[in-house]
Amino acid sequence: MPAAPQPDLELAGSLFDALGHATRRGRGIVRDSYGAGEQAAHDILRSAATNVGLEVSVDAIGNLFMTLPGRDRGAPRIIMGSHLDSVPQGGNFDGAAGVVAGVSVLSGLRRASVTPGYDLSTMAIRGEESAWFDIAYLGSHGAFGLLDPACLAIARSDNRQSLEGALRQQGFDPEPIRERRRLLDPARIRAYLELHIEQGPTLVAKGLPAAVVSGVRGCKRFRNARCIGEYAHSGAVARPYRHDAVAATVAFLHHMEAVWLEQEATGADLVLTSGELYTDPAMHGPSKIAGETRFVLDLRSLSDATMEAVAAEARTAAARIGSAYHVAIDLGTTSDSPAAPMDSRLRSRLMRLLERPFEMASGAGHDAAVFSKVGIPSAMIFVRNANGSHNPDEAMSPEDFAVGAGALLELLLDFPL
Amino acid sequence: MPAAPQPDLELAGSLFDALGHATRRGRGIVRDSYGAGEQAAHDILRSAATNVGLEVSVDAIGNLFMTLPGRDRGAPRIIMGSHLDSVPQGGNFDGAAGVVAGVSVLSGLRRASVTPGYDLSTMAIRGEESAWFDIAYLGSHGAFGLLDPACLAIARSDNRQSLEGALRQQGFDPEPIRERRRLLDPARIRAYLELHIEQGPTLVAKGLPAAVVSGVRGCKRFRNARCIGEYAHSGAVARPYRHDAVAATVAFLHHMEAVWLEQEATGADLVLTSGELYTDPAMHGPSKIAGETRFVLDLRSLSDATMEAVAAEARTAAARIGSAYHVAIDLGTTSDSPAAPMDSRLRSRLMRLLERPFEMASGAGHDAAVFSKVGIPSAMIFVRNANGSHNPDEAMSPEDFAVGAGALLELLLDFPL
Repeated sequence: MPAAPQPDLELAGSLFDALGHATRRGRGIVRDSYGAGEQAAHDILRSAATNVGLEVSVDAIGNLFMTLPGRDRGAPRIIMGSHLDSVPQGGNFDGAAGVVAGVSVLSGLRRASVTPGYDLSTMAIRGEESAWFDIAYLGSHGAFGLLDPACLAIARSDNRQSLEGALRQQGFDPEPIRERRRLLDPARIRAYLELHIEQGPTLVAKGLPAAVVSGVRGCKRFRNARCIGEYAHSGAVARPYRHDAVAATVAFLHHMEAVWLEQEATGADLVLTSGELYTDPAMHGPSKIAGETRFVLDLRSLSDATMEAVAAEARTAAARIGSAYHVAIDLGTTSDSPAAPMDSRLRSRLMRLLERPFEMASGAGHDAAVFSKVGIPSAMIFVRNANGSHNPDEAMSPEDFAVGAGALLELLLDFPL
Repeated sequence: MPAAPQPDLELAGSLFDALGHATRRGRGIVRDSYGAGEQAAHDILRSAATNVGLEVSVDAIGNLFMTLPGRDRGAPRIIMGSHLDSVPQGGNFDGAAGVVAGVSVLSGLRRASVTPGYDLSTMAIRGEESAWFDIAYLGSHGAFGLLDPACLAIARSDNRQSLEGALRQQGFDPEPIRERRRLLDPARIRAYLELHIEQGPTLVAKGLPAAVVSGVRGCKRFRNARCIGEYAHSGAVARPYRHDAVAATVAFLHHMEAVWLEQEATGADLVLTSGELYTDPAMHGPSKIAGETRFVLDLRSLSDATMEAVAAEARTAAARIGSAYHVAIDLGTTSDSPAAPMDSRLRSRLMRLLERPFEMASGAGHDAAVFSKVGIPSAMIFVRNANGSHNPDEAMSPEDFAVGAGALLELLLDFPL
């Protein structure tokens, strides 16, 4: 009787080393979407997958599939995966951990001589980060024919190369995007399973190695909010005559924090952030009342209804506070991504697999949200990570990774393979 | 019996026209301190003063004196005046109105054949605006030997020429500044009288042509305040784990607005402004919690004690709110200019001269504050002006100017001439 399968942690360690070695630029990691850094990561994974006996294939837009073939090659398969790109000066684990976990799980199954009833694939997804082309989920949205063809013209944030140019340069084909053509059929995917580092401090604070993700928070973002007042001398204008854009913006954002606290008190899931806020450096001055601010208001929740309600309250408050301060607070339009619940059966199974079960929302978006959106039962495992993500100091321990990858393999074995 | 003297309003009108014609660049006025624009204005005033029979002289640092000689040339004199420089793209009246008023008053006295008992001078003061050399009151502080010699090295904001270079290029002498040498003896100045446009909307709102200035507000400014938190993903960090620099800054500034309202309720004179506030464009992002803000907090009051108390409360609140939000709010040092009360006897006399007497604080700084600081009884008259100052749209009507200049002449005639 063969030993019980285990994730191939030796392979995982060598893959993390190779990825870090190949794509570190200065302190941080640079795996540019559809650029040289992401391609280097794909090459490393592809070569390792081949070495351990997995089948490899690449779709028209560059997503890499590493597959342990099943007995029935035509039956719906399970896909594990995540993305291999990073933000500029990111860390080694955001995205890559999920792809490495999938490959180490498949390698472990193969070493244990498991032949599943249907294909088990690990998908290295392209272009999940919006840092390069100002749009997230290029690979997963593209695989399901969900990209707006207009995205092909988006210029890369640093070198201004178009997405279409980048695709062609890497040898890929923009036509499926232009035609909104599906490369993956949701009906032929049994489940999607993604391991990812936690991007916040919760698991560190709670002393837990891993968690089950309840869902991926949606986002409703006022990306281009403005407050328009009037510039004036800071000493020479009494309060009743002011049109102070900073004072009004402060009052508005302070009110929205109170709204957040109220929502929390009712048990609603919500995070609310203004991460960009600025007066105009060409116009502001230390002895001027500010005539303009620009800011972002970012709302996230597991509940679309909560986001709707808070956004409506923001609009009401903007009008009321703008009027009180003799300014115009124009929140502009929102960009929206709906909340993506994870599959409740898979969540329950995962909870039973963790020694210290803990469930939490994902505030960041993940490819799993896209798979969930097209109707595929999806699940996510968070692994503890210090120092947040999208920075060079991401820190996931091999031990915590082993807990997460072990849960991923156990979840897989829980399916009728 | 000669007619009662009147300000020479025809001269005033032609001077405003000539100044606007000579120094308009595009929409706005450019009379750069110790530069070509300011010099053009000095040339116009000097020539007009000579034409109407005034004595002219220029001190070592370029201040221009236009004098109606008195019977006793050695007796302490009265100086009227203001500055002739402007901010870049300023208006035609900020500063110039006071110099033109002084010359039109002296021309009126001369036309009425008044020979005063002592000299009456109008002083066209150099470099009052801080826009060019990042330091205000160059001419008046320099005349009283109050400039820090280090200012000679300050580079002009646009062309980086040093103040010393600019002085020499205009034919002036930096040595008195280097030696902190006094060019004017406060004991030999009976009074200083300054007419200036109001830089705020109060007189327009109240429908009054002119006002008596009760004092020049002092300023206590936290010029380089910072809030240091931690950048993190906006969706992935729950509220208790955040180090959100924007949220903390908003809470702090909102608290300071409440402090302002409390001070107002007690009758204290105070204005409070944050006119610069910004996250770091190199680091912030729409889906990031901000790890840093920078901002200015500008306090102004007629009472130094009020400014001290509010600044102390700001420091206490910064510590308390910083701690509550897990960030560090570092207000830094303040730059301070004390409040400058106007002379109470001159204020009373002026109030009696206005048909509809009204007294108000000056929130902006003026050369009169410097004269007051060195112990010279000083008074100021504000003239109604629409659209604020330091912009091309300054708008003072000839009728309102006539009211102000008339009051200035009457105040002069009230002295034992």
